[in-house]
Amino acid sequence: MGRKGSIELETSEINFVIVGHRAETSPDFPLNDLCGAAGRWDGLARCINTALLLSHEIRKDTNIHLILLGGKDPPKILSVSGHDVRYLNPDERSTAALMKKALNLPLSPSLRRPLCPSPGLNISRGGLDEFIDGMEGRAFLLDEHGEDIHDNEVADLLLKGGPPLFFFLSDDMDLSVEERGSVMKAVHGTISVGPRVLQAHQVVAVLNNILDRTRN
Amino acid sequence: MGRKGSIELETSEINFVIVGHRAETSPDFPLNDLCGAAGRWDGLARCINTALLLSHEIRKDTNIHLILLGGKDPPKILSVSGHDVRYLNPDERSTAALMKKALNLPLSPSLRRPLCPSPGLNISRGGLDEFIDGMEGRAFLLDEHGEDIHDNEVADLLLKGGPPLFFFLSDDMDLSVEERGSVMKAVHGTISVGPRVLQAHQVVAVLNNILDRTRN
Repeated sequence: MGRKGSIELETSEINFVIVGHRAETSPDFPLNDLCGAAGRWDGLARCINTALLLSHEIRKDTNIHLILLGGKDPPKILSVSGHDVRYLNPDERSTAALMKKALNLPLSPSLRRPLCPSPGLNISRGGLDEFIDGMEGRAFLLDEHGEDIHDNEVADLLLKGGPPLFFFLSDDMDLSVEERGSVMKAVHGTISVGPRVLQAHQVVAVLNNILDRTRN
Repeated sequence: MGRKGSIELETSEINFVIVGHRAETSPDFPLNDLCGAAGRWDGLARCINTALLLSHEIRKDTNIHLILLGGKDPPKILSVSGHDVRYLNPDERSTAALMKKALNLPLSPSLRRPLCPSPGLNISRGGLDEFIDGMEGRAFLLDEHGEDIHDNEVADLLLKGGPPLFFFLSDDMDLSVEERGSVMKAVHGTISVGPRVLQAHQVVAVLNNILDRTRN
Protein backbone atom coordinates (compact mmCIF):
# COMPACT_ATOMS: atom_id res chain seq x y z
CA MET A 1 0.00 0.00 0.00
CA GLY A 2 2.89 2.36 -0.64
CA ARG A 3 4.41 1.82 2.79
CA LYS A 4 5.99 -1.57 2.46
CA GLY A 5 6.43 -3.48 5.66
CA SER A 6 4.58 -0.98 7.79
CA ILE A 7 1.08 -2.29 7.34
CA GLU A 8 -0.23 -5.51 8.72
CA LEU A 9 -3.67 -6.83 8.18
CA GLU A 10 -3.99 -9.74 10.53
CA THR A 11 -6.49 -12.54 10.52
CA SER A 12 -8.89 -11.31 7.93
CA GLU A 13 -12.10 -11.93 6.26
CA ILE A 14 -12.16 -10.43 2.79
CA ASN A 15 -15.47 -10.13 0.99
CA PHE A 16 -16.04 -9.25 -2.64
CA VAL A 17 -19.55 -8.13 -3.59
CA ILE A 18 -20.31 -8.19 -7.31
CA VAL A 19 -23.47 -6.73 -8.77
CA GLY A 20 -24.61 -8.82 -11.73
CA HIS A 21 -27.14 -6.59 -13.42
CA ARG A 22 -28.38 -9.01 -16.07
CA ALA A 23 -27.26 -12.26 -14.42
CA GLU A 24 -29.89 -14.95 -14.90
CA THR A 25 -31.50 -15.94 -11.59
CA SER A 26 -33.29 -19.07 -12.76
CA PRO A 27 -31.26 -22.25 -13.26
CA ASP A 28 -32.22 -22.85 -16.86
CA PHE A 29 -29.62 -20.62 -18.52
CA PRO A 30 -27.42 -22.27 -21.16
CA LEU A 31 -23.88 -23.16 -20.07
CA ASN A 32 -22.90 -22.78 -23.73
CA ASP A 33 -23.80 -19.10 -23.77
CA LEU A 34 -22.66 -17.65 -20.44
CA CYS A 35 -21.71 -14.39 -22.12
CA GLY A 36 -25.08 -13.88 -23.82
CA ALA A 37 -28.24 -15.66 -22.76
CA ALA A 38 -26.97 -16.22 -19.21
CA GLY A 39 -26.55 -12.47 -18.67
CA ARG A 40 -22.77 -12.37 -18.27
CA TRP A 41 -22.40 -15.31 -15.92
CA ASP A 42 -18.97 -15.72 -17.56
CA GLY A 43 -17.78 -12.61 -15.78
CA LEU A 44 -19.27 -13.68 -12.47
CA ALA A 45 -17.60 -17.08 -12.79
CA ARG A 46 -14.24 -15.40 -13.40
CA CYS A 47 -14.82 -13.28 -10.29
CA ILE A 48 -15.49 -16.41 -8.23
CA ASN A 49 -12.31 -18.01 -9.60
CA THR A 50 -10.13 -14.99 -9.00
CA ALA A 51 -11.57 -14.16 -5.59
CA LEU A 52 -11.26 -17.66 -4.14
CA LEU A 53 -8.74 -19.72 -6.09
CA LEU A 54 -4.97 -19.55 -5.93
CA SER A 55 -2.84 -21.74 -8.19
CA HIS A 56 -3.43 -24.93 -6.25
CA GLU A 57 -5.38 -23.93 -3.16
CA ILE A 58 -8.39 -21.99 -1.98
CA ARG A 59 -8.37 -18.64 -0.19
CA LYS A 60 -10.08 -19.78 2.97
CA ASP A 61 -10.31 -16.25 4.41
CA THR A 62 -12.21 -14.88 1.43
CA ASN A 63 -15.87 -14.86 0.43
CA ILE A 64 -17.65 -13.62 -2.65
CA HIS A 65 -21.24 -12.44 -2.78
CA LEU A 66 -23.12 -12.13 -6.06
CA ILE A 67 -26.07 -9.77 -6.23
CA LEU A 68 -28.07 -11.30 -9.06
CA LEU A 69 -30.53 -8.90 -10.61
CA GLY A 70 -31.40 -10.32 -14.02
CA GLY A 71 -33.44 -13.00 -15.68
CA LYS A 72 -36.63 -14.63 -14.55
CA ASP A 73 -36.45 -14.68 -10.75
CA PRO A 74 -34.59 -11.66 -9.34
CA PRO A 75 -33.29 -10.54 -6.95
CA LYS A 76 -31.08 -13.16 -5.32
CA ILE A 77 -27.97 -13.03 -3.18
CA LEU A 78 -25.59 -15.93 -3.78
CA SER A 79 -22.59 -16.19 -1.46
CA VAL A 80 -19.60 -18.49 -1.83
CA SER A 81 -17.36 -19.05 1.16
CA GLY A 82 -13.72 -19.87 0.49
CA HIS A 83 -13.56 -21.59 3.85
CA ASP A 84 -16.32 -24.05 3.13
CA VAL A 85 -16.79 -24.36 -0.62
CA ARG A 86 -16.27 -27.72 -2.29
CA TYR A 87 -16.43 -28.96 -5.90
CA LEU A 88 -15.21 -25.58 -7.21
CA ASN A 89 -13.12 -25.87 -10.38
CA PRO A 90 -11.36 -22.97 -12.07
CA ASP A 91 -13.22 -22.86 -15.38
CA GLU A 92 -16.25 -20.70 -16.09
CA ARG A 93 -18.52 -23.52 -17.23
CA SER A 94 -18.19 -25.80 -14.21
CA THR A 95 -18.33 -22.82 -11.87
CA ALA A 96 -21.60 -21.66 -13.42
CA ALA A 97 -22.91 -25.25 -13.29
CA LEU A 98 -22.17 -25.40 -9.56
CA MET A 99 -23.94 -22.08 -9.00
CA LYS A 100 -27.01 -23.43 -10.81
CA LYS A 101 -27.49 -25.76 -7.84
CA ALA A 102 -28.18 -22.70 -5.76
CA LEU A 103 -30.46 -21.08 -8.32
CA ASN A 104 -32.46 -24.30 -8.44
CA LEU A 105 -33.69 -23.87 -4.87
CA PRO A 106 -37.15 -22.30 -4.53
CA LEU A 107 -36.96 -19.02 -2.64
CA SER A 108 -40.16 -17.47 -1.40
CA PRO A 109 -40.34 -13.66 -1.42
CA SER A 110 -40.43 -13.61 2.36
CA LEU A 111 -37.51 -15.97 2.93
CA ARG A 112 -34.82 -14.37 5.03
CA ARG A 113 -32.76 -17.38 6.08
CA PRO A 114 -30.24 -18.38 3.38
CA LEU A 115 -30.47 -21.87 1.93
CA CYS A 116 -27.37 -24.02 1.43
CA PRO A 117 -27.51 -26.24 -1.67
CA SER A 118 -23.86 -27.31 -1.53
CA PRO A 119 -21.01 -26.79 0.97
CA GLY A 120 -19.97 -23.14 1.09
CA LEU A 121 -22.86 -21.88 -1.03
CA ASN A 122 -25.67 -19.81 0.44
CA ILE A 123 -28.54 -18.26 -1.43
CA SER A 124 -31.28 -15.95 -0.25
CA ARG A 125 -33.92 -13.65 -1.63
CA GLY A 126 -32.72 -10.07 -1.84
CA GLY A 127 -30.81 -7.41 -3.72
CA LEU A 128 -28.23 -4.78 -2.97
CA ASP A 129 -30.20 -3.06 -0.21
CA GLU A 130 -30.92 -6.34 1.59
CA PHE A 131 -27.26 -7.32 1.37
CA ILE A 132 -26.14 -3.99 2.77
CA ASP A 133 -28.68 -4.22 5.59
CA GLY A 134 -27.12 -7.49 6.74
CA MET A 135 -23.51 -6.49 6.25
CA GLU A 136 -21.16 -6.03 9.19
CA GLY A 137 -17.71 -4.68 8.44
CA ARG A 138 -15.85 -1.91 6.66
CA ALA A 139 -16.89 -1.49 3.05
CA PHE A 140 -15.44 0.19 -0.03
CA LEU A 141 -16.66 0.80 -3.53
CA LEU A 142 -14.23 -0.01 -6.33
CA ASP A 143 -14.65 2.55 -9.05
CA GLU A 144 -12.56 4.05 -11.82
CA HIS A 145 -13.10 7.51 -10.33
CA GLY A 146 -12.10 6.49 -6.80
CA GLU A 147 -9.01 7.47 -4.87
CA ASP A 148 -5.86 5.58 -5.80
CA ILE A 149 -5.49 2.56 -3.53
CA HIS A 150 -1.75 3.22 -3.32
CA ASP A 151 -2.36 6.60 -1.74
CA ASN A 152 -1.26 6.49 1.89
CA GLU A 153 -4.48 8.04 3.16
CA VAL A 154 -6.50 5.44 1.29
CA ALA A 155 -4.34 2.68 2.73
CA ASP A 156 -4.98 4.06 6.21
CA LEU A 157 -8.68 4.28 5.54
CA LEU A 158 -8.73 0.77 4.15
CA LEU A 159 -6.91 -0.88 6.99
CA LYS A 160 -8.05 1.14 9.97
CA GLY A 161 -10.24 -1.03 12.10
CA GLY A 162 -9.25 -4.22 10.39
CA PRO A 163 -11.44 -6.92 8.92
CA PRO A 164 -13.96 -7.95 7.86
CA LEU A 165 -13.64 -5.92 4.70
CA PHE A 166 -16.18 -5.65 1.90
CA PHE A 167 -15.34 -4.54 -1.63
CA PHE A 168 -18.24 -3.64 -3.90
CA LEU A 169 -17.76 -3.97 -7.65
CA SER A 170 -20.11 -3.78 -10.57
CA ASP A 171 -20.09 -6.15 -13.53
CA ASP A 172 -19.66 -4.80 -17.06
CA MET A 173 -22.44 -2.26 -16.45
CA ASP A 174 -22.09 0.78 -14.23
CA LEU A 175 -24.10 0.95 -11.03
CA SER A 176 -27.38 2.77 -11.53
CA VAL A 177 -27.92 6.05 -9.70
CA GLU A 178 -30.10 4.27 -7.15
CA GLU A 179 -27.61 1.44 -6.64
CA ARG A 180 -24.74 3.85 -6.27
CA GLY A 181 -26.75 5.81 -3.73
CA SER A 182 -27.33 2.68 -1.66
CA VAL A 183 -23.69 1.66 -1.80
CA MET A 184 -22.35 5.13 -1.03
CA LYS A 185 -24.34 5.20 2.21
CA ALA A 186 -22.66 1.96 3.28
CA VAL A 187 -19.03 2.48 2.31
CA HIS A 188 -16.11 4.28 3.90
CA GLY A 189 -14.71 5.39 0.57
CA THR A 190 -14.43 4.87 -3.14
CA ILE A 191 -11.14 3.49 -4.37
CA SER A 192 -9.49 2.76 -7.70
CA VAL A 193 -6.81 0.16 -8.35
CA GLY A 194 -5.22 1.96 -11.27
CA PRO A 195 -5.47 4.19 -14.31
CA ARG A 196 -7.28 1.79 -16.68
CA VAL A 197 -10.89 0.57 -16.45
CA LEU A 198 -10.55 -3.16 -15.79
CA GLN A 199 -12.95 -6.07 -15.84
CA ALA A 200 -14.27 -6.97 -12.39
CA HIS A 201 -12.19 -10.15 -12.05
CA GLN A 202 -9.06 -8.21 -12.96
CA VAL A 203 -9.81 -5.71 -10.19
CA VAL A 204 -10.27 -8.63 -7.79
CA ALA A 205 -6.87 -10.03 -8.81
CA VAL A 206 -5.14 -6.72 -8.17
CA LEU A 207 -6.93 -6.21 -4.84
CA ASN A 208 -6.10 -9.72 -3.65
CA ASN A 209 -2.46 -9.12 -4.52
CA ILE A 210 -2.38 -5.86 -2.56
CA LEU A 211 -4.04 -7.54 0.42
CA ASP A 212 -1.66 -10.51 0.15
CA ARG A 213 1.21 -8.09 0.54
CA THR A 214 -0.27 -6.60 3.69
CA ARG A 215 -0.62 -10.04 5.22
CA ASN A 216 2.76 -11.45 4.28
CA MET B 1 7.06 0.03 -8.88
CA GLY B 2 7.66 1.42 -5.45
CA ARG B 3 8.79 4.79 -6.77
CA LYS B 4 5.59 6.44 -7.75
CA GLY B 5 5.88 8.98 -10.48
CA SER B 6 9.55 8.40 -11.15
CA ILE B 7 9.26 5.67 -13.73
CA GLU B 8 7.92 6.06 -17.20
CA LEU B 9 7.55 3.30 -19.68
CA GLU B 10 6.68 5.03 -22.90
CA THR B 11 5.23 3.56 -26.06
CA SER B 12 5.41 -0.07 -25.27
CA GLU B 13 4.89 -3.48 -26.59
CA ILE B 14 4.10 -5.89 -23.81
CA ASN B 15 4.24 -9.61 -24.54
CA PHE B 16 3.01 -12.43 -22.33
CA VAL B 17 4.30 -15.90 -23.13
CA ILE B 18 2.34 -18.76 -21.57
CA VAL B 19 3.52 -22.36 -21.68
CA GLY B 20 0.53 -24.70 -22.01
CA HIS B 21 1.99 -28.07 -21.16
CA ARG B 22 -1.04 -30.20 -21.90
CA ALA B 23 -2.93 -27.78 -24.15
CA GLU B 24 -4.55 -29.62 -27.03
CA THR B 25 -2.96 -28.67 -30.38
CA SER B 26 -5.54 -30.23 -32.66
CA PRO B 27 -8.85 -28.40 -33.18
CA ASP B 28 -11.10 -31.26 -32.13
CA PHE B 29 -11.07 -30.65 -28.38
CA PRO B 30 -14.46 -30.28 -26.68
CA LEU B 31 -15.52 -26.74 -25.80
CA ASN B 32 -17.59 -28.29 -23.01
CA ASP B 33 -14.50 -29.63 -21.24
CA LEU B 34 -11.80 -26.98 -21.52
CA CYS B 35 -10.51 -27.83 -18.07
CA GLY B 36 -10.14 -31.56 -18.75
CA ALA B 37 -10.02 -33.04 -22.23
CA ALA B 38 -8.79 -29.80 -23.79
CA GLY B 39 -5.70 -29.79 -21.55
CA ARG B 40 -6.45 -26.63 -19.56
CA TRP B 41 -7.49 -24.42 -22.44
CA ASP B 42 -9.70 -22.71 -19.81
CA GLY B 43 -6.60 -21.24 -18.20
CA LEU B 44 -5.13 -20.16 -21.53
CA ALA B 45 -8.41 -18.49 -22.47
CA ARG B 46 -8.40 -16.57 -19.20
CA CYS B 47 -4.83 -15.48 -19.91
CA ILE B 48 -5.88 -14.18 -23.34
CA ASN B 49 -8.79 -12.29 -21.76
CA THR B 50 -6.72 -10.76 -18.99
CA ALA B 51 -3.73 -9.94 -21.18
CA LEU B 52 -5.69 -8.20 -23.93
CA LEU B 53 -9.09 -7.09 -22.68
CA LEU B 54 -9.94 -4.12 -20.52
CA SER B 55 -13.50 -3.45 -19.40
CA HIS B 56 -14.68 -2.19 -22.74
CA GLU B 57 -11.61 -1.97 -24.94
CA ILE B 58 -8.59 -3.91 -26.11
CA ARG B 59 -4.99 -3.37 -25.02
CA LYS B 60 -3.58 -2.56 -28.44
CA ASP B 61 0.01 -2.46 -27.19
CA THR B 62 -0.09 -6.01 -25.81
CA ASN B 63 0.37 -9.44 -27.35
CA ILE B 64 0.06 -12.92 -25.91
CA HIS B 65 1.90 -15.97 -27.18
CA LEU B 66 0.79 -19.48 -26.27
CA ILE B 67 3.35 -22.27 -26.42
CA LEU B 68 1.10 -25.29 -26.95
CA LEU B 69 2.76 -28.55 -26.04
CA GLY B 70 -0.02 -31.06 -25.54
CA GLY B 71 -2.47 -33.21 -27.44
CA LYS B 72 -2.19 -34.68 -30.86
CA ASP B 73 -0.11 -32.20 -32.89
CA PRO B 74 2.49 -30.41 -30.75
CA PRO B 75 4.37 -28.15 -30.63
CA LYS B 76 2.65 -25.00 -31.86
CA ILE B 77 3.11 -21.31 -31.16
CA LEU B 78 -0.13 -19.33 -31.26
CA SER B 79 0.15 -15.56 -30.97
CA VAL B 80 -2.67 -13.08 -30.47
CA SER B 81 -2.03 -9.41 -31.17
CA GLY B 82 -4.05 -6.87 -29.21
CA HIS B 83 -3.50 -4.40 -32.02
CA ASP B 84 -5.05 -6.53 -34.71
CA VAL B 85 -7.29 -9.14 -33.10
CA ARG B 86 -10.99 -9.18 -33.96
CA TYR B 87 -13.95 -11.30 -32.83
CA LEU B 88 -12.45 -11.74 -29.35
CA ASN B 89 -15.06 -12.03 -26.62
CA PRO B 90 -14.29 -12.20 -22.90
CA ASP B 91 -15.58 -15.69 -22.10
CA GLU B 92 -13.47 -18.85 -22.11
CA ARG B 93 -15.65 -20.79 -24.50
CA SER B 94 -15.78 -18.29 -27.36
CA THR B 95 -12.10 -17.49 -26.91
CA ALA B 96 -11.19 -21.17 -27.21
CA ALA B 97 -13.51 -21.46 -30.23
CA LEU B 98 -11.70 -18.59 -31.93
CA MET B 99 -8.33 -20.19 -31.22
CA LYS B 100 -9.54 -23.42 -32.82
CA LYS B 101 -9.52 -21.57 -36.14
CA ALA B 102 -5.76 -21.36 -35.81
CA LEU B 103 -5.36 -24.98 -34.71
CA ASN B 104 -7.35 -26.03 -37.75
CA LEU B 105 -4.63 -24.87 -40.16
CA PRO B 106 -2.28 -27.62 -41.34
CA LEU B 107 1.30 -26.88 -40.27
CA SER B 108 4.09 -28.86 -41.84
CA PRO B 109 7.05 -29.69 -39.58
CA SER B 110 9.30 -27.44 -41.64
CA LEU B 111 6.99 -24.43 -41.75
CA ARG B 112 8.67 -21.31 -40.38
CA ARG B 113 6.39 -18.56 -41.63
CA PRO B 114 3.37 -18.11 -39.34
CA LEU B 115 -0.09 -18.57 -40.80
CA CYS B 116 -2.90 -16.11 -40.07
CA PRO B 117 -6.35 -17.73 -39.82
CA SER B 118 -8.12 -14.64 -38.47
CA PRO B 119 -7.09 -11.01 -37.89
CA GLY B 120 -4.50 -10.75 -35.14
CA LEU B 121 -3.92 -14.50 -34.85
CA ASN B 122 -0.70 -16.13 -35.99
CA ILE B 123 0.23 -19.77 -35.65
CA SER B 124 3.45 -21.56 -36.45
CA ARG B 125 5.16 -24.85 -35.79
CA GLY B 126 7.50 -24.67 -32.80
CA GLY B 127 7.95 -24.82 -29.06
CA LEU B 128 9.67 -22.81 -26.38
CA ASP B 129 13.13 -22.93 -27.99
CA GLU B 130 11.83 -21.83 -31.38
CA PHE B 131 9.93 -18.97 -29.76
CA ILE B 132 12.96 -17.81 -27.84
CA ASP B 133 15.12 -18.01 -30.98
CA GLY B 134 12.84 -15.56 -32.72
CA MET B 135 12.30 -13.24 -29.76
CA GLU B 136 13.68 -9.71 -29.74
CA GLY B 137 13.32 -7.74 -26.53
CA ARG B 138 13.93 -7.85 -22.81
CA ALA B 139 12.48 -10.94 -21.18
CA PHE B 140 11.61 -12.00 -17.64
CA LEU B 141 10.42 -15.19 -16.05
CA LEU B 142 7.52 -14.90 -13.62
CA ASP B 143 8.05 -17.35 -10.82
CA GLU B 144 7.04 -17.68 -7.20
CA HIS B 145 10.71 -17.80 -6.18
CA GLY B 146 11.67 -14.69 -8.17
CA GLU B 147 12.65 -11.29 -6.85
CA ASP B 148 9.78 -9.11 -5.70
CA ILE B 149 8.64 -6.90 -8.57
CA HIS B 150 8.22 -4.00 -6.14
CA ASP B 151 11.91 -4.09 -5.27
CA ASN B 152 13.57 -0.98 -6.68
CA GLU B 153 16.40 -2.95 -8.29
CA VAL B 154 13.89 -5.21 -10.02
CA ALA B 155 11.96 -2.17 -11.23
CA ASP B 156 15.19 -0.76 -12.66
CA LEU B 157 16.02 -4.08 -14.31
CA LEU B 158 12.53 -4.35 -15.70
CA LEU B 159 12.36 -0.91 -17.21
CA LYS B 160 15.95 -0.30 -18.24
CA GLY B 161 16.12 -0.34 -22.00
CA GLY B 162 12.40 -0.06 -22.47
CA PRO B 163 10.10 -2.20 -24.57
CA PRO B 164 9.41 -4.61 -26.09
CA LEU B 165 9.07 -6.65 -22.93
CA PHE B 166 8.41 -10.38 -22.69
CA PHE B 167 7.02 -12.09 -19.60
CA PHE B 168 7.22 -15.87 -19.47
CA LEU B 169 4.70 -17.74 -17.35
CA SER B 170 3.83 -21.37 -16.98
CA ASP B 171 0.31 -22.77 -16.81
CA ASP B 172 -0.81 -24.82 -13.81
CA MET B 173 2.28 -27.03 -14.16
CA ASP B 174 5.80 -25.93 -13.30
CA LEU B 175 8.31 -25.56 -16.10
CA SER B 176 10.37 -28.73 -16.60
CA VAL B 177 14.09 -28.58 -15.88
CA GLU B 178 14.78 -28.38 -19.61
CA GLU B 179 12.19 -25.66 -20.20
CA ARG B 180 13.46 -23.64 -17.29
CA GLY B 181 16.99 -23.98 -18.63
CA SER B 182 15.94 -22.61 -22.00
CA VAL B 183 14.03 -19.71 -20.48
CA MET B 184 16.77 -18.81 -18.01
CA LYS B 185 19.24 -18.37 -20.86
CA ALA B 186 16.88 -15.88 -22.48
CA VAL B 187 15.72 -13.74 -19.56
CA HIS B 188 17.19 -10.82 -17.65
CA GLY B 189 15.75 -11.97 -14.36
CA THR B 190 13.16 -13.95 -12.48
CA ILE B 191 10.45 -11.93 -10.79
CA SER B 192 7.53 -12.57 -8.48
CA VAL B 193 4.41 -10.45 -8.17
CA GLY B 194 3.67 -11.34 -4.57
CA PRO B 195 3.74 -13.76 -1.70
CA ARG B 196 1.04 -16.19 -2.90
CA VAL B 197 1.23 -18.61 -5.83
CA LEU B 198 -1.36 -17.32 -8.27
CA GLN B 199 -2.96 -18.68 -11.41
CA ALA B 200 -1.31 -17.43 -14.59
CA HIS B 201 -4.16 -15.06 -15.54
CA GLN B 202 -4.05 -13.55 -12.06
CA VAL B 203 -0.33 -12.86 -12.48
CA VAL B 204 -1.09 -11.24 -15.84
CA ALA B 205 -3.70 -9.00 -14.20
CA VAL B 206 -1.25 -7.85 -11.54
CA LEU B 207 1.54 -7.28 -14.07
CA ASN B 208 -0.71 -5.30 -16.39
CA ASN B 209 -1.78 -3.14 -13.45
CA ILE B 210 1.84 -2.44 -12.51
CA LEU B 211 2.71 -1.61 -16.11
CA ASP B 212 -0.40 0.58 -16.41
CA ARG B 213 0.88 2.62 -13.49
CA THR B 214 4.26 3.14 -15.16
CA ARG B 215 2.54 4.39 -18.29
CA ASN B 216 0.01 6.67 -16.65
